[in-house]
Amino acid sequence: MSKVTTIIDIGSNSMRMVVLQKSSRFAFNLINETKSRVKISEGCYENNGNLQEIPMQRAYESLKSFLNISNALKSRKIICVATSALRDAPNSNVFISKVKKDLGLNIKVIDGEKEAYYGGVAASNLLHDDTFVTVDIGGGSTEFSFVKNGKIEKSISLNIGTVRIKELYFNKNNTEGAKNYILDNLKKIFELDIEIPKKVVGIGGSIRALSKIVMAKKEYPLDILHGFTYDARAEISFFDRISRAKDNDDLKSFGVKKDRFDTIKEGAFIFKTILEELKINEVVTSGVGVREGVYLTDLLRNSNHKFPENFNVSVRSLLDRFQIDEKQSAYLGNNAKKIFDALKPLHNLDNKYRGLLVIASKLHSIGSTLNFYKSNDNAFDFILNGLNYDFLHTSRVVVAYTIKFSKKSLPTKSDILDYEELLPSLRVMQWMSFMISLNFAVNQDFSRPKVEYFLDDETLEISLPNRSFLIESNIDKLETPEDLTIKIL
Amino acid sequence: MSKVTTIIDIGSNSMRMVVLQKSSRFAFNLINETKSRVKISEGCYENNGNLQEIPMQRAYESLKSFLNISNALKSRKIICVATSALRDAPNSNVFISKVKKDLGLNIKVIDGEKEAYYGGVAASNLLHDDTFVTVDIGGGSTEFSFVKNGKIEKSISLNIGTVRIKELYFNKNNTEGAKNYILDNLKKIFELDIEIPKKVVGIGGSIRALSKIVMAKKEYPLDILHGFTYDARAEISFFDRISRAKDNDDLKSFGVKKDRFDTIKEGAFIFKTILEELKINEVVTSGVGVREGVYLTDLLRNSNHKFPENFNVSVRSLLDRFQIDEKQSAYLGNNAKKIFDALKPLHNLDNKYRGLLVIASKLHSIGSTLNFYKSNDNAFDFILNGLNYDFLHTSRVVVAYTIKFSKKSLPTKSDILDYEELLPSLRVMQWMSFMISLNFAVNQDFSRPKVEYFLDDETLEISLPNRSFLIESNIDKLETPEDLTIKIL
Repeated sequence: MSKVTTIIDIGSNSMRMVVLQKSSRFAFNLINETKSRVKISEGCYENNGNLQEIPMQRAYESLKSFLNISNALKSRKIICVATSALRDAPNSNVFISKVKKDLGLNIKVIDGEKEAYYGGVAASNLLHDDTFVTVDIGGGSTEFSFVKNGKIEKSISLNIGTVRIKELYFNKNNTEGAKNYILDNLKKIFELDIEIPKKVVGIGGSIRALSKIVMAKKEYPLDILHGFTYDARAEISFFDRISRAKDNDDLKSFGVKKDRFDTIKEGAFIFKTILEELKINEVVTSGVGVREGVYLTDLLRNSNHKFPENFNVSVRSLLDRFQIDEKQSAYLGNNAKKIFDALKPLHNLDNKYRGLLVIASKLHSIGSTLNFYKSNDNAFDFILNGLNYDFLHTSRVVVAYTIKFSKKSLPTKSDILDYEELLPSLRVMQWMSFMISLNFAVNQDFSRPKVEYFLDDETLEISLPNRSFLIESNIDKLETPEDLTIKIL
Repeated sequence: MSKVTTIIDIGSNSMRMVVLQKSSRFAFNLINETKSRVKISEGCYENNGNLQEIPMQRAYESLKSFLNISNALKSRKIICVATSALRDAPNSNVFISKVKKDLGLNIKVIDGEKEAYYGGVAASNLLHDDTFVTVDIGGGSTEFSFVKNGKIEKSISLNIGTVRIKELYFNKNNTEGAKNYILDNLKKIFELDIEIPKKVVGIGGSIRALSKIVMAKKEYPLDILHGFTYDARAEISFFDRISRAKDNDDLKSFGVKKDRFDTIKEGAFIFKTILEELKINEVVTSGVGVREGVYLTDLLRNSNHKFPENFNVSVRSLLDRFQIDEKQSAYLGNNAKKIFDALKPLHNLDNKYRGLLVIASKLHSIGSTLNFYKSNDNAFDFILNGLNYDFLHTSRVVVAYTIKFSKKSLPTKSDILDYEELLPSLRVMQWMSFMISLNFAVNQDFSRPKVEYFLDDETLEISLPNRSFLIESNIDKLETPEDLTIKIL
């Protein structure tokens, strides 16, 4: 697969491009994302679904700009897919041929099931959960992909969409009709004879806009949408109120942004109805969708469209990109496990923290790559944003803080205030802080010593093959949690 | 010169190492900094100045650890210098020979004038100012280097030092004697027959500690020591009070940190006396000193120990390290100038902002290299810390904010609150925000178009060779400052 790959997705409202760069076999990162609201479907409905001249011209120009960007970034592979906008237009071939002829680009029109499947591939690889149904509400259709234990069981596309509902029902003040139309369509899901999960992964602009509003309402501490999770049952009546907003001022008061005024009522109505009908408990917001699914389907074509077990793309990509010494990083990961295990009788932390301590230890030196001075502070926001895929928000915050707290003194209550609701207790963070700091202290001379740790009551005995004034004085300076004392052997 | 170079500096109190990595001919960045308080001179004074066994052993062990780190970082060149600790000890050769024999390391004992000179080289290349005297207060001596218009005119070392003053006078409560001793030594400066600048660049632990205290007292918004500047006359009486502190609680109440308790009174006393006697107006804090001077003297050995004109090591190093497309960066720099110049009749900004707009435009894409999502936010702290050398704090903040504000909407009062005292007016920042945003909007397709700008009254006419829906709609979305309107030709 090419090192740099471009994925373009032509929707009825927006055209979007992502440019992704591979850093190793399965790891990649985003290097460009461009969106253009070309509204290629504008005027279609009044013209038997036919694409109109001016919207086609806009889309053509933006595609040309997209290709410029793609070339400037040395992308060698471009995959361009189009969904309902082109699959429903009788004259789509006019546009497709012109693009093929003038720009040399093949547009692949994909069917609804495929579109749903791509959403499932993206969500199952790039989100932490493994059993859920993706819901991707678009202008003309909504895609569902049922994922169980990480495996996609079924994908389906229904003719429910914000623009469709708006034109057919909302513009005529017929919400009852809208409801019946949606219920009627949803029957196809129940006919699938499949177990419906209690968790929705929400994809697409409408659902993301709703998540943003919920986030703001809850004063959620982390400004990251991908992975943001909320209780569906607690928000259904809120979504209902949005769907019944009288005017734009009303929408504004709910926290809706201007560029979402046109279809948010329909989006909220459709989503609310789906959540109710499918008896969903929890919504996980996805920042990834069709484009990432297309990319992953290509990248993982020889492995059933799934990353290998225990592979984390964010961690791998950060390690790849930030010139981290592989041997040091592996050593620190292993040593973290030893320290965690030796101290387990005292700290009694859940084993998930062992994994997070290992990740924090491996990623710690990114801070120095970025900027040696204040490296831990600089690393904080960076790690918080860099662990973008396949991490719970709570895990991200723990890893970022553990790195920030790798210093002599233990964190205090005021140090964790900003993200308190996402963090475990101060006690847990103090242990994490101590363990990562000890990890670096024993290896401060980068000699990767074979250290052994023994716990004797509340004394940690450290057998240190690289004893020296530098190492010992740094271990001496470490503040220890609770009643722990350290003895160097 | 080697790609990775290690500089070790053996002082009477601490041994310090920096490992620096070259990224291009004159650009470099710090990849490791390690300090060990080995106190090699401990017990010297009671033993005719002879180095004692245990302190030598500590220093030896730490040197060994330093060399481990240096090797792990693939450093190919090590320069180790020692100052007063070894030059004053009759038996220094015992230590030097053992290190040479067992560790293969040559310790170069440098005289006081050379030590002062290295401070001058560091300050004149890595600070914004060009006429000043460096003052580096150590345990046994204080070094002065007189720099005029960027040229080192004279370097001198005096036998004034915190430990010396403490043992000879402060321990005997004889401040009058201390004062006379210092005045007597300072005569050598007046005998130099040199014009004494009004500005001190303060080097070394004691002066840095004093700067930190002043910073905290003033609630200075930026947590960066290097380049922090204050009015000397306003702090002299404060330093006097520190020098007369009765006990550690007293020191603590002034904001002194525990590890500085032992010599801060003497440090404050010496510095205060120097500031008074030399009639200094302003103090600029330096985070760099002998080690960086040693490095630069080697790096710049063929150019009179000075960077070329208009070379900025921080900007170059960031451009080198963060995979920035050189052509794009050069284009954006040039285009920034065109935009600034075309709009000059309206914004009337000082030309220094032209330079800062160019730097911000060139460095902007670092944000994307770091993390595509929230790239401008991530870049902010990073740029603030990354422009570590040769920048006024006010300039750093302007560049970092200009990058952060490269978006559709103009900043408001609340956006600049945190660093208000270091920033120009909101009006200036709104113009900077608009100009950088326009710069990126015209090149959003990365085609580096040859754009021309004409100002007609309050309308900016843009002749755009790469007109397209994407570019035009993005320019349309830009919020403009004051009454400016935009017309695309």
